[in-house]
Amino acid sequence: MNIDYFTHRLEKLKTDKMYQNDFFLTWEKTDDEIAALFAVADALRHLRENNISARIFDSGLAVSLFRDNSTRTRFSFASAANLLGLEVQDLDEGKSQIAHGETVRETANMISFMADVIGIRDDMYIGKGNAYMREVAQAVQQGCEEGVLEQRPTLVNLQCDIDHPTQSLADMLHVIHHFGGVENLKGKKIAMSWAYSPSYGKPLSVPQGIIGLMTRFGMDVCLAHPEGYEVMADVEGVAAKNAAGAGGSFTRTNSMAEAFKDADIVYPKSWAPFAAMEKRTNLYAEGDDAGIRALEKELLSQNAGHKDWACTEEMMRLTKGGDALYMHCLPADITGVSCKEGEVDGSVFDRYRKPLYKEAGFKPYIIAAMIFLAKCKDPASALSALASNNSARQVR
Amino acid sequence: MNIDYFTHRLEKLKTDKMYQNDFFLTWEKTDDEIAALFAVADALRHLRENNISARIFDSGLAVSLFRDNSTRTRFSFASAANLLGLEVQDLDEGKSQIAHGETVRETANMISFMADVIGIRDDMYIGKGNAYMREVAQAVQQGCEEGVLEQRPTLVNLQCDIDHPTQSLADMLHVIHHFGGVENLKGKKIAMSWAYSPSYGKPLSVPQGIIGLMTRFGMDVCLAHPEGYEVMADVEGVAAKNAAGAGGSFTRTNSMAEAFKDADIVYPKSWAPFAAMEKRTNLYAEGDDAGIRALEKELLSQNAGHKDWACTEEMMRLTKGGDALYMHCLPADITGVSCKEGEVDGSVFDRYRKPLYKEAGFKPYIIAAMIFLAKCKDPASALSALASNNSARQVR
Amino acid sequence: MNIDYFTHRLEKLKTDKMYQNDFFLTWEKTDDEIAALFAVADALRHLRENNISARIFDSGLAVSLFRDNSTRTRFSFASAANLLGLEVQDLDEGKSQIAHGETVRETANMISFMADVIGIRDDMYIGKGNAYMREVAQAVQQGCEEGVLEQRPTLVNLQCDIDHPTQSLADMLHVIHHFGGVENLKGKKIAMSWAYSPSYGKPLSVPQGIIGLMTRFGMDVCLAHPEGYEVMADVEGVAAKNAAGAGGSFTRTNSMAEAFKDADIVYPKSWAPFAAMEKRTNLYAEGDDAGIRALEKELLSQNAGHKDWACTEEMMRLTKGGDALYMHCLPADITGVSCKEGEVDGSVFDRYRKPLYKEAGFKPYIIAAMIFLAKCKDPASALSALASNNSARQVR
Repeated sequence: MNIDYFTHRLEKLKTDKMYQNDFFLTWEKTDDEIAALFAVADALRHLRENNISARIFDSGLAVSLFRDNSTRTRFSFASAANLLGLEVQDLDEGKSQIAHGETVRETANMISFMADVIGIRDDMYIGKGNAYMREVAQAVQQGCEEGVLEQRPTLVNLQCDIDHPTQSLADMLHVIHHFGGVENLKGKKIAMSWAYSPSYGKPLSVPQGIIGLMTRFGMDVCLAHPEGYEVMADVEGVAAKNAAGAGGSFTRTNSMAEAFKDADIVYPKSWAPFAAMEKRTNLYAEGDDAGIRALEKELLSQNAGHKDWACTEEMMRLTKGGDALYMHCLPADITGVSCKEGEVDGSVFDRYRKPLYKEAGFKPYIIAAMIFLAKCKDPASALSALASNNSARQVR
Repeated sequence: MNIDYFTHRLEKLKTDKMYQNDFFLTWEKTDDEIAALFAVADALRHLRENNISARIFDSGLAVSLFRDNSTRTRFSFASAANLLGLEVQDLDEGKSQIAHGETVRETANMISFMADVIGIRDDMYIGKGNAYMREVAQAVQQGCEEGVLEQRPTLVNLQCDIDHPTQSLADMLHVIHHFGGVENLKGKKIAMSWAYSPSYGKPLSVPQGIIGLMTRFGMDVCLAHPEGYEVMADVEGVAAKNAAGAGGSFTRTNSMAEAFKDADIVYPKSWAPFAAMEKRTNLYAEGDDAGIRALEKELLSQNAGHKDWACTEEMMRLTKGGDALYMHCLPADITGVSCKEGEVDGSVFDRYRKPLYKEAGFKPYIIAAMIFLAKCKDPASALSALASNNSARQVR
Repeated sequence: MNIDYFTHRLEKLKTDKMYQNDFFLTWEKTDDEIAALFAVADALRHLRENNISARIFDSGLAVSLFRDNSTRTRFSFASAANLLGLEVQDLDEGKSQIAHGETVRETANMISFMADVIGIRDDMYIGKGNAYMREVAQAVQQGCEEGVLEQRPTLVNLQCDIDHPTQSLADMLHVIHHFGGVENLKGKKIAMSWAYSPSYGKPLSVPQGIIGLMTRFGMDVCLAHPEGYEVMADVEGVAAKNAAGAGGSFTRTNSMAEAFKDADIVYPKSWAPFAAMEKRTNLYAEGDDAGIRALEKELLSQNAGHKDWACTEEMMRLTKGGDALYMHCLPADITGVSCKEGEVDGSVFDRYRKPLYKEAGFKPYIIAAMIFLAKCKDPASALSALASNNSARQVR
């Protein structure tokens, strides 16, 4: 296998709109564009596995802004940037002189004079994170048009209140590799299921990202959660439309067992009810600390009523052949390991540890592919050029 | 236009003393040296705009030490370092094991074994920041002479208690470009004016930097502030001497309107009285918290008596043609945007947003030029070599 | 002198086990391996002094994890990584989403998808730091074998509860250079002595590292401390065994004067009693804050009884010719400078400032050599290739 395998895939796809563009939500991208991302991610991995440099930048900055703690995504972003030749510069708002009331437009331009990418994680408040990213992207677009910026930094959504595209795309590429190709996914059943966790308020972006993306490949996507744990209605609409278009299905259930029944893939994970997260956002806006504490108490008690929503050995036996592919964005709340009762049994998690780590390993390549496609006008040629340069990543 | 345009300018200038030297205050540099900085800054931008790599370093560190919050200068320093091939390593004093009483000489050497540049912002206390920078520079100079360090890190003043050279030089280069060349500045009037802000204790380094630099180009520089808001007397002396030498003028007034009258350029900005800042420094040294609080109260009340010092539409109408170039180091305190009453009207700020952002965009190139001239023995040849190598900054 | 001088030394040494391996403790390495480290460290310095790039990486990450404050080691690690072409990515546990109970195995893999090196400082608790490093190394070894990681990150011990190999090896290389070669060390006497400091609880890894390494070169190593300040018994065993094998000696005394008598080298430094550190570790584990405060008080009072353990001018006069080489890992507690009474007289410290700074300057090269030998299958060829490429570190 050589680089042509990937560039031939790429050449058949229409990707010109990705050039100089951003990545906010997977459902804003065409099937060709999603396919291109997978092709480039695979190609970049191929280059690296063969010790061939994938640097397309001699210098340049990749600005990161994390408004929530992160290990996996932080290191994935740093890895992707470094692979392509960019240096990460973190915008630590605590160390910044961002004036009270300083406009997003101003900050966005001030950090972007030599920025090629801006990656943002902002997933805490409903209606805020994605909106903030778009505001930043518009600001640098305008800055570029006005001649303030010499290059247009690409915005990469590293998790927002709506979607978590670098996660869902890494997950999807893992599924594709696991089943030996996208052509084998038709009719496969995936259970995106809520699961109990002793913490509360986990972001909705993962389940929303999964149903918004995985419904595009002809699979039967089943969203399961206890009553009251509904996700954003808009994203359910996206999922239903996707499924109809791709010849698969999108179903909902309030039974974990029903979702797991004959599933080829299971993705059990805790999240907070969308309605509660919306309420919390409003309480924060009002500075209502007592209200927040009351809501937290209410949510924890609500959660505690659903401890049976766990990915146990018994539950796994319901899946196709008893050995569905178990997925998680990590870290998982593992019963008896990281908590007393959690999302998944220790024995289940242990059995799937290797594929879980591999799943996580796709994320740096997905992010690098997003940047690559936004920066290279002719990505197939750019990949071929890297392969023929054959410059060593490490002199051994 | 090609690189020769810049190297020809550079070849006529005497810059040998900049080699292996530091940058503390603009008025310690000759006119040739200041002109060389502008030429190199323009040349580096020319290279970048033409996608030509400006890396002169294959590896090396650019150490930064920020004793005050910063976004603009932090990103400018990171951008400049990255453009030339250096990696930023931040000396975060909170994470450092700098012993009580550890000498500056020791710390300076310990961080410099592979440092090519050290950038410091230390603008909080009168008589401290600039002195500290010189102590660091002397320490690494000695370390280099003693064979402790293999290379001499260049010290770049990223703002001190006296001057803010990366700001004033970026501002000046903006002025030069705006008026189509340094030869067009003779007789132009610039009003460096105090303006009201609801905060207090803003550094003096910007107004001091502006009057200390802009008096060198034959302009009429008018410093305006309410009584009691005097800047450092020494720097006023520098300004007066500069103006006399350059055939311009340096005047002072206690009327904002007088300063704005027929001005070609206005730079309205809040700062704290020098005498008060000196007092605050002593109070800190004595650990007199009550005294500091009392001083703060006094200064805020003093400020509040001068809310009419604002860059309003009315004030702007006094300027030459009613459309003087409005400048600011950003972030500005904008009336109705970042505060109730501030330095500038929202409508004035909005009208000048684009030139303000461009003004800020010169800073990375000014910093890069400082490093370039300190590191390249023959900067004109080094620039020509980069242009003829024609190595792409980004493979597209 | 050219690169062959170093590669010839290297070619005679058996270093194949260093390839793709870690660095935990100096006494786990063979004499050949230690000699190879010194040869590579010297060779990398030779390249840098001749402005020849030592980059063996075109891209790649060097992950650092500091569980204790650090300036010297942090900058040394950053310098070493940068010299070889790696970008530092700090794992700041405060900014990380490392779940309660998340396994070390998981975190280790998640940060390592594109990591070539992991450097860890974890020296606070007895029985913890070194064990943690080994757990990380095992995790990435397994990750590599399972195909989760494409490359095996090398673990570098940047200080643990047992050893401080980057310090002791830098110290040793300093000794070798000072005495004109390892062949001149036979019979030289070094006093590794406890000294008074007003702080308490300083790590044991330096004295343990020194006696564990310096006993391998035929020197007479004398460990001196007041009664009750014993170091780890296991490491004393290592020292005794080393000395027997190398034809030198390892002795212990409770008299600083006896240790300094006729010494060629003195290394006076404070540390906490091993037994007390073990007790503190247990108190932390039990969350016994009152117990910790009581222990702290007890230790400070115990220390205060030994203020005569100081490297005074008088004490220095006991050494060979009155001018033994004074060493310290820095920062030192200097009497009258950083504290009222401390480890060393101001006049002694001042006289040795230059060699002390040079001593510290070996650390970046030692770390780079550890990485180089773990990454290059044929290190001699790799060095020769760098020399013949003759690519400039800085274009001048």
